[in-house]
Amino acid sequence: MATRWGIIGTSNISHDFAVAMGTLPRTEHLITAVASKDKVRSREFAEQFDIPNAYDSYSLMANDTEVDVVYVGTLNEHHYSVSRLMLEHGKNVLCEEPFCQNSNQVQQLVELARSKNLFLMEAMWMFFTPAFTILGEEINKGTIGEPLQIISSFGTPMSESLIQQRNSGGSILELAVFSVYMSQFLFGPEKPQIYGTCGQLTECGFDKDASIILKYSNGRISTFLSHFKVNLPNEATVFGTKGNIKLYDPFWSATKISINGTDTIIDVPQTKKATRYGNSVQLIYEIQEVRNCLLKGINESSIVPWSLSIENAILVEDIRKKLGVTICK
Amino acid sequence: MATRWGIIGTSNISHDFAVAMGTLPRTEHLITAVASKDKVRSREFAEQFDIPNAYDSYSLMANDTEVDVVYVGTLNEHHYSVSRLMLEHGKNVLCEEPFCQNSNQVQQLVELARSKNLFLMEAMWMFFTPAFTILGEEINKGTIGEPLQIISSFGTPMSESLIQQRNSGGSILELAVFSVYMSQFLFGPEKPQIYGTCGQLTECGFDKDASIILKYSNGRISTFLSHFKVNLPNEATVFGTKGNIKLYDPFWSATKISINGTDTIIDVPQTKKATRYGNSVQLIYEIQEVRNCLLKGINESSIVPWSLSIENAILVEDIRKKLGVTICK
Repeated sequence: MATRWGIIGTSNISHDFAVAMGTLPRTEHLITAVASKDKVRSREFAEQFDIPNAYDSYSLMANDTEVDVVYVGTLNEHHYSVSRLMLEHGKNVLCEEPFCQNSNQVQQLVELARSKNLFLMEAMWMFFTPAFTILGEEINKGTIGEPLQIISSFGTPMSESLIQQRNSGGSILELAVFSVYMSQFLFGPEKPQIYGTCGQLTECGFDKDASIILKYSNGRISTFLSHFKVNLPNEATVFGTKGNIKLYDPFWSATKISINGTDTIIDVPQTKKATRYGNSVQLIYEIQEVRNCLLKGINESSIVPWSLSIENAILVEDIRKKLGVTICK
Repeated sequence: MATRWGIIGTSNISHDFAVAMGTLPRTEHLITAVASKDKVRSREFAEQFDIPNAYDSYSLMANDTEVDVVYVGTLNEHHYSVSRLMLEHGKNVLCEEPFCQNSNQVQQLVELARSKNLFLMEAMWMFFTPAFTILGEEINKGTIGEPLQIISSFGTPMSESLIQQRNSGGSILELAVFSVYMSQFLFGPEKPQIYGTCGQLTECGFDKDASIILKYSNGRISTFLSHFKVNLPNEATVFGTKGNIKLYDPFWSATKISINGTDTIIDVPQTKKATRYGNSVQLIYEIQEVRNCLLKGINESSIVPWSLSIENAILVEDIRKKLGVTICK
C-alpha cells in the first residue's frame, strides 16, 4: 500500500519535494493533500501536482485521516509550531531542515513523538545522498588516511532587504547547519571547542555571515563558512594524511565527488518538471527512508536519529551564542 | 652595468632563485658569489650555476667588495642573524620570507638598513607576480563588487620527525604568512581582530596546523588555514558581492587566475633547469624590482615597504600568541 503524504507549505523546497516524489512509483508514494494558509497557493500547488485535497489551514491537514505522514516545508520559523500541531493530532512528521529555532524546541518535538509513538525526522537529506554514503565508506576504508581537516562553505547572495525581513535566524542556523552535520558525522559525537566570528549582524542581531572553527580531539578541525552576502564555493572537502575527498557544489546534495583527485559522477533519476534547487531529485532518498521506517513501525531513522538532531541543535545554538548572535524570540 | 648578486644558503629556494635568474639578461643580473657553511655544497652550487666565488663562511661573503646585494636563502631561523651580518658589512639585502622569527627582529633590521642607507626587502615574491597584479587591478575596477571574504590555505604534508626537528616556528609563521599578506593587501592596514585555533602543537609548542579568522571593519573577513600534516587546496579566493577572483594553486605564485569563473593562464619565461618549487621562475619579478630600486638609489620597495613587513610580522606574532603558540627562543 502506498504511503500517503500531506505537504505543508508551498515553498520552493515543497515544490521540489513533490517533483522528486513524481519519480517514485505511485504504488509506494502518493501525495493526498497539501496545506497552505494562502488558499490560492494551496489550490495551485494541488493542481500542479494532481493532489486531491487542498487545504487553507494546517488544522484541516492535521485532521485528515487519509494522511499517514506530513512533510513540513513551511518557512523555518514555523517548523516547530506546525510539527507540534501535527504530532498532537497523531501525524507522523518529516520536518525540513533546519529543524527548529533552538534545541529546546527540538527536544520538545522528540518528547512528543516518543510519547505519542509517532515517526519524526529532520529532513537532513544530505545524509541519504549516494555521494555522502560514498564519502563515509571511503573514509572508513582509509582511502585518505587519517582525516584531520574539513573545509566547507555555504554562501548564497541575498538582497539586504530580504535579509532584514527574515525572522528565521541567520546564516549559521540556515546554511551552516549542513557543515555542522558534516562535522558531527566525521568527528562526533564528541562536543568540540568553538572558535569563530561573524562579519555582519542584522538589526535584529543575527548573523549575515560567519566563519566557524570546531576543534575536536586528536588534532581534528572543521573549518566552515556561511554567508548571505556573497556566493561561496559551496563544496565540502575532507583532508586526510593520505589524500582528500571532495563533495562538489552543492555539497549537501552533490552528484559529483572527487576521491584523491579522481572525479565520479553519480547518476540520479530525471525529473519530469525542473526543480528549483540544484540536484533536488535526491530528496527521494530521504522520502524512501521515511516509508521504510513507517513500514517497519520504527519512530526514528538510524541515519538521522533524534539524538543526532538534538546534538546538532545544541551545537548550532552554542555556536550562535559564542559568536554573539541574538537568538530571536 | 649588471647587478652583482651574492647568494647565501644553498637551499631549494636558493637553487630556484639561481635558476630563475638564468632567464634574465646577464647584462643586468650576475651571481658573483655563493656562501654556505658546508664547503662541498657551496662549491657544488657554484659549479652548477657557473658562479666565480664559493665561500664556506658568511663573513667571506660579507667582505666581498664585488657583491652589490645578497639574497638570503638560508633556513628561516638564520634569516635575522645573516641579514644583520650583511647589513653591518654594508651589503644590500633581499631576505627570503618569512622574514624573521618575530617583529622585533624585523624592526631591528629595518633600523639598521635605515641607519646604514642600505636597501632591504623581504622576498615576498607573491606581490610581484602578474596574477597578483591582476587581482589588485580587478578588485579596484569593481569586477567583483565589494570584497567581503577571503578564503585561502597552504598545507603541505611533512613527516612527523621532520616537523619535530624544525626550529623555525610552525605552520603559521612558515605557511600562513602568505595569507596574512593577502589580508593586509586587500583589507589592511587596519589591525584586525583575531580568531582561530591550532589542532596540534609540537613538543616545542609550535603549531603543526592552524585555522585562522581575521575580522576587519565593514563585515570583511579573511579565513585561512595552514597545515604541516595534510595537503590543502593552496588556493586563495576573494569573494565579493558581485563575484569572485581565484588564484590557483600555488596561490602565492599562481600562473592561473579565475575572474568570475573565467580562467586566464599567465605566460612566464621557460627555465633551462627545472625548479624545485612550482612556478618559481616568477622569482624574476622580485629580482627585477631589487635592481630597479638599486638603480634608483632607493632603500625600500614601494611594493613591499618596510612598514608592511613590520605590520605583517606583528600580525603573525599576535596570531601565534592568540592561538597559544610558543614563540621559540
